[in-house]
Amino acid sequence: MAVRPQQSPIVAALPVVVPFVGPEAMERTSGKPFRARIGANESSFGPAPSVIAKMREIAPDQWMYCDPDNHDLRTAAAAHVGVAPQNVVVGLGIDGLLNLAVRMFVAPGETVVTSLGAYPTFNFHVDGFGGRLIKLPYVNDKESLDDLLATAKRENAKMVYLSNPDNPMGTWWEADEIMRFIEALPETTVLCLDEAYGELGPASALPPIDLSRPNVLRFRTFSKAYGLAGIRCGYAIGDAQTIADFEKIRDHYASSRMAQIACITALEDQDYLASVVARVAAGRQRIAGIARDNGLVPIASATNFVTIDCLGDGEHALKVLQNLLARGVFIRKPMVPVLNRCIRVSVGLDHELDVFAEELPAALRAAAG
Amino acid sequence: MAVRPQQSPIVAALPVVVPFVGPEAMERTSGKPFRARIGANESSFGPAPSVIAKMREIAPDQWMYCDPDNHDLRTAAAAHVGVAPQNVVVGLGIDGLLNLAVRMFVAPGETVVTSLGAYPTFNFHVDGFGGRLIKLPYVNDKESLDDLLATAKRENAKMVYLSNPDNPMGTWWEADEIMRFIEALPETTVLCLDEAYGELGPASALPPIDLSRPNVLRFRTFSKAYGLAGIRCGYAIGDAQTIADFEKIRDHYASSRMAQIACITALEDQDYLASVVARVAAGRQRIAGIARDNGLVPIASATNFVTIDCLGDGEHALKVLQNLLARGVFIRKPMVPVLNRCIRVSVGLDHELDVFAEELPAALRAAAG
Repeated sequence: MAVRPQQSPIVAALPVVVPFVGPEAMERTSGKPFRARIGANESSFGPAPSVIAKMREIAPDQWMYCDPDNHDLRTAAAAHVGVAPQNVVVGLGIDGLLNLAVRMFVAPGETVVTSLGAYPTFNFHVDGFGGRLIKLPYVNDKESLDDLLATAKRENAKMVYLSNPDNPMGTWWEADEIMRFIEALPETTVLCLDEAYGELGPASALPPIDLSRPNVLRFRTFSKAYGLAGIRCGYAIGDAQTIADFEKIRDHYASSRMAQIACITALEDQDYLASVVARVAAGRQRIAGIARDNGLVPIASATNFVTIDCLGDGEHALKVLQNLLARGVFIRKPMVPVLNRCIRVSVGLDHELDVFAEELPAALRAAAG
Repeated sequence: MAVRPQQSPIVAALPVVVPFVGPEAMERTSGKPFRARIGANESSFGPAPSVIAKMREIAPDQWMYCDPDNHDLRTAAAAHVGVAPQNVVVGLGIDGLLNLAVRMFVAPGETVVTSLGAYPTFNFHVDGFGGRLIKLPYVNDKESLDDLLATAKRENAKMVYLSNPDNPMGTWWEADEIMRFIEALPETTVLCLDEAYGELGPASALPPIDLSRPNVLRFRTFSKAYGLAGIRCGYAIGDAQTIADFEKIRDHYASSRMAQIACITALEDQDYLASVVARVAAGRQRIAGIARDNGLVPIASATNFVTIDCLGDGEHALKVLQNLLARGVFIRKPMVPVLNRCIRVSVGLDHELDVFAEELPAALRAAAG
């Protein structure tokens, strides 16, 4: 048997798990395509027609590397949120930017605070760089600002993660609550404020951009409202020095040229964005109505999905999920008590929500039987 | 003045440099587009028409996340090189895969051996994860297998980097030399064998795939011969356990859906690849001829570029480079003595090589004057 090279201690200690099962893997297993793909909080409405046209136009140019500075997209994103380009770093979606932020700030053994059941990819990065995770329960289906703050202070945490609006519950805090949280947070604790769903909820949930706090990083993406999850692009907003320091570790040629250009077009087409936001709001209403029609309780959402309380325990909701999957409806669910009493349904096209409405009663009966 | 959160010691110690100046940045500075983009070893011939058609077809689908398993591309790439899918991991070009390989194996302070003047992005990753780099001079414009081997053994190195064919010199070792090198390498030393240009040189330079050595990782890319640098996709080949361990740290949703699908089409169109390989070979001949016509010495190349000995010192070649840049010809050059006596010219389209032929004499006169 061959000798194996030793891995670095942090990586050697990580479990070999498959952290994510995509809908494609489920389709390969079942041998049947899903009839409704409403589980990954993608935007079934797709990218803007203007963006599709731009992607088609530039397809032949993909022999060129990206601009390693991301200059044009960085400038456009900065203008969009009203800051200088020096306050924006473009990356491979929020996933890729969280990887860099954790790597930059969290030394092995340092403490990071998040909510139990919040974004698993953030935890994956913290584990991956040897951080120590503290996970605090949601309170009333919201990430608890009070508990995150108290724990960050008590533990002298290096980083705290907060998504607002929240995934997987769809709940949100108003801007003034977030601002109080930021004010009270130790300046030595980095806040990763994940605003992936920021365009889709009430404007009152997004605090104004305040660049005076070097410990605050805000994350935006083209994966959700802009309908470009497959192109992998997002950006982080922060004070200029922190943003400059990303140069020390980011892969400079990591963005695709397609993403750099398509996302500028996406930002330019705010009319399309507004139409998606309206359709998402209508879709949330429809999903909530379907839930109520079946005696379930939809949780108010500021995102492109609705989390539905199935009024039982985790095992019951898991059965509902499995029955829906078996009926060709791809959805997901929170897995951590007590959030796990819910299923999570993304806003899809009308015909996809028709399928959901059609299959939910039977899925509930099968789960109860 | 605000308190700043402390960075992890490894990142805090890194210099804030701009490691890469792209041609777009130079164009922004000069205010003029280049007339020939023959500096980044891209493929001016572009992706296959079949690939362009596929990208256009799937542009509307980019609202979907990628398949986190990269299942279909992984399967296609594995079949292409004659291994099992379990021996292939898909990543964000060789850059992204080298990042993961270094992170997996190189603990802070551990020794990594490469050649002085070889791929700077590899060094960027080693620095970025706190490794200790030893850089050995090229010998006769080739990475020295003897010196890399002796140093890896003496230093008990965790990793050694070798590109074959080589960038930036274009030189190569025949497969039997590489196989002897692998045989002699300690099993505890990981070899990163960068074969980015593997399709473009003589087949005799590529050793058969041998999966019996867990310490050997071979890297391939769609950025060079396949003309898809802008789409960011490559793969690594290795033993199944090492490949499985990439799951512990790779960003599972990092590949773009566009890349996953376009690259399968690229692999399917081997006729187009063959036509590119032939055009690249003709282009190398042409560049070599232009060099000779100007009294310079082209170095034999197994890549899509020709490195040209300007028969002076580094300062002279730098002047030649700068004069060409000022004349609208984007090329690059090695920066490390004694390689720095050369300029490096990528195979471009005929009209780009016309511009090079046209401007080189004046650039040489200005450098001499």
